[in-house]
Amino acid sequence: MSVIKVGVMGIGNMGRSHVQLLGKGKINGAILTAVCDPFQDNLKELLKDTAGDVQIFKDEDAFLNESDIDAVLISTPHYDHPRLAVKAFAKGMHVLVEKPAGVYTKSVAEMNKAAKESGKVFGIMYNQRCNPIYQKLRELIQSGELGEIKRTNWIITDWYRSQSYYDSSEWRATWKGEGGGVLLNQAPHQLDLWQWTTGLMPKKVHAFCSYGKYHDIEVEDEITAYVEYENGATGIFITSTGEAPGTNRFEISGDRGKMVVENDKLIFHRLTQSEREFNATYKGGFGKPECWTIDIPIKGERTDHQGIMQNWIDSIAKGTPLLAPGEEGIKGLEISNAIYLSSWLKEPVELPIDAELFYKKLQEKINQSSFQKKNVEKVIFDVSETH
Amino acid sequence: MSVIKVGVMGIGNMGRSHVQLLGKGKINGAILTAVCDPFQDNLKELLKDTAGDVQIFKDEDAFLNESDIDAVLISTPHYDHPRLAVKAFAKGMHVLVEKPAGVYTKSVAEMNKAAKESGKVFGIMYNQRCNPIYQKLRELIQSGELGEIKRTNWIITDWYRSQSYYDSSEWRATWKGEGGGVLLNQAPHQLDLWQWTTGLMPKKVHAFCSYGKYHDIEVEDEITAYVEYENGATGIFITSTGEAPGTNRFEISGDRGKMVVENDKLIFHRLTQSEREFNATYKGGFGKPECWTIDIPIKGERTDHQGIMQNWIDSIAKGTPLLAPGEEGIKGLEISNAIYLSSWLKEPVELPIDAELFYKKLQEKINQSSFQKKNVEKVIFDVSETH
Repeated sequence: MSVIKVGVMGIGNMGRSHVQLLGKGKINGAILTAVCDPFQDNLKELLKDTAGDVQIFKDEDAFLNESDIDAVLISTPHYDHPRLAVKAFAKGMHVLVEKPAGVYTKSVAEMNKAAKESGKVFGIMYNQRCNPIYQKLRELIQSGELGEIKRTNWIITDWYRSQSYYDSSEWRATWKGEGGGVLLNQAPHQLDLWQWTTGLMPKKVHAFCSYGKYHDIEVEDEITAYVEYENGATGIFITSTGEAPGTNRFEISGDRGKMVVENDKLIFHRLTQSEREFNATYKGGFGKPECWTIDIPIKGERTDHQGIMQNWIDSIAKGTPLLAPGEEGIKGLEISNAIYLSSWLKEPVELPIDAELFYKKLQEKINQSSFQKKNVEKVIFDVSETH
Repeated sequence: MSVIKVGVMGIGNMGRSHVQLLGKGKINGAILTAVCDPFQDNLKELLKDTAGDVQIFKDEDAFLNESDIDAVLISTPHYDHPRLAVKAFAKGMHVLVEKPAGVYTKSVAEMNKAAKESGKVFGIMYNQRCNPIYQKLRELIQSGELGEIKRTNWIITDWYRSQSYYDSSEWRATWKGEGGGVLLNQAPHQLDLWQWTTGLMPKKVHAFCSYGKYHDIEVEDEITAYVEYENGATGIFITSTGEAPGTNRFEISGDRGKMVVENDKLIFHRLTQSEREFNATYKGGFGKPECWTIDIPIKGERTDHQGIMQNWIDSIAKGTPLLAPGEEGIKGLEISNAIYLSSWLKEPVELPIDAELFYKKLQEKINQSSFQKKNVEKVIFDVSETH
């Protein structure tokens, strides 16, 4: 197949980074041919080093109808992901959406339906799935090395953001513009990996969110969620943008031991026999099963956004299986929506959630908002230090 | 002052260990002169290496009225701690109670009142307060090094117990005999240190307990508690006897950084400025306050039970301040009672809890119990591997 012509919609912080990767020829088999953004500031400057001609559009319909592209990368604000993806699929384009898949599962389910009907290649920018440490963790869990899971625990509080970050644009960290805070902007990666590596979706969520606790924003900047799984396992997910230095520690306890990912290491505390078996047969007082502490070797590079984009292009060109199929974006979002709903209702919620109820409650948040952003200074950030 | 004559009530696993320490002259200024236990098996054998004569009693009143003692160490099953302590104070004795202080705060408040009125030295066996790592943690937090606390998180799941442990006696892990499971038997140390090191008691507790999840018992063997503090900080406490290998990791996040106690190390991630100050003044996108990672040197030995007993004797003999005043036993128990109450009511509870309501609910658990212990084999365990 010939080179894939790619367009990018939404040239904010992340979009600029994607344009640079494509424009500098970092994605084999792909070429940047069009961009679209209602704000045209600095676009020419951004594109000056790009090989070949790039069409610049202001209007999304003109972009979708008139540009010469096979595939579109959508990096607009989150609310627009499903709507634009549905339009792109209707035009026969392949789609890669930035995370999160959207703001509410109702629209993401529609996007997934459109993707399926189109038969096009649909990916999502869960670039952390390219991280070999999480790939290895998933492989070990899925192969049964850890045995049945008992408990999961992710403390992911190293998403520190200052007030100036929130002040960098009008839409950010508002119910209307972004649809949420840390759960929608920073933590989607871990919400995805939490279920992707373990293969477990919670069946019940009881969550506690703090809104504007550490920043002058109306959405959440700290959450603690307690979950229960179908098999009886329990879990905790803690995230925050208000702590420095944060923690990124994912612990999974199972019948065959415990795995901990922290500081770029995967440590497997491996029992030499099943704990359930030991429990049933041991006759002493304070004994425990024998345990080996293993520093699991991690091979490969963290290819991040480039890895996901290359994989998406390879999937279009050669049928390579997707690392992050777009349809799976609904899973992390479902957990995220459940966390909000539990916090708003002040009660546990079962999954799958009532998508209509969530949508209705979100509209109430938007309509009842009287929050005014102060000190907004529209700024373009270098995103090389985040993901 | 002359040597303190000590009696020990309750010669189970822990009582035997205390008798051995006292009997072998390990506590300076103290001598073992009497023991009391309704079960007399092996008591003579236990006492054969003890210097001097030790009176052996079967009946608690005979022991309290007739024995030649100045001070009593109470290591009976938990329910009896307050009742026996009140009797001992009435006899003018100094008292050291094993943890937990009791099973419900209503009786512990009565014990504290009796202690205060007696003017005698009242200690509690929170031997982990002798651990220099927690002493140092407390010192750093109380001196303001960490700044205002934002979040606490203790994963204390390395209390593994097998079914054979629970089968070792009739009273263990029953509502009637012990009054609970991991919260009353294993985790009281951490429930104490959680509030002692931080100086913060939760104001609200929302907890999730699993009863007989990993063992054939009627009480809880896994809990997750979410708490909120007066200053807005949040916290998580997770404990279990069903995981191998468990985790013992205590993380405290504050305005000036983060402290983590794990694997016998205290790591202080110390910011060079206040996070709140940084947040208010920084103007960039993804910046964070500068952070130094410091391995805090820990001096001193873990003196454990011996340390608490020596400190109690020194307090009686020389007025040395107590490391673990008995009156403080109610704090950890209050959190423990709140965790049960929240789990039973399936709703958050405020602290201080309704002590009468807790007592009533506990009586319901006892009265409604139809649990029959199977395979009980009364065994004496060597407790040198636990605390």
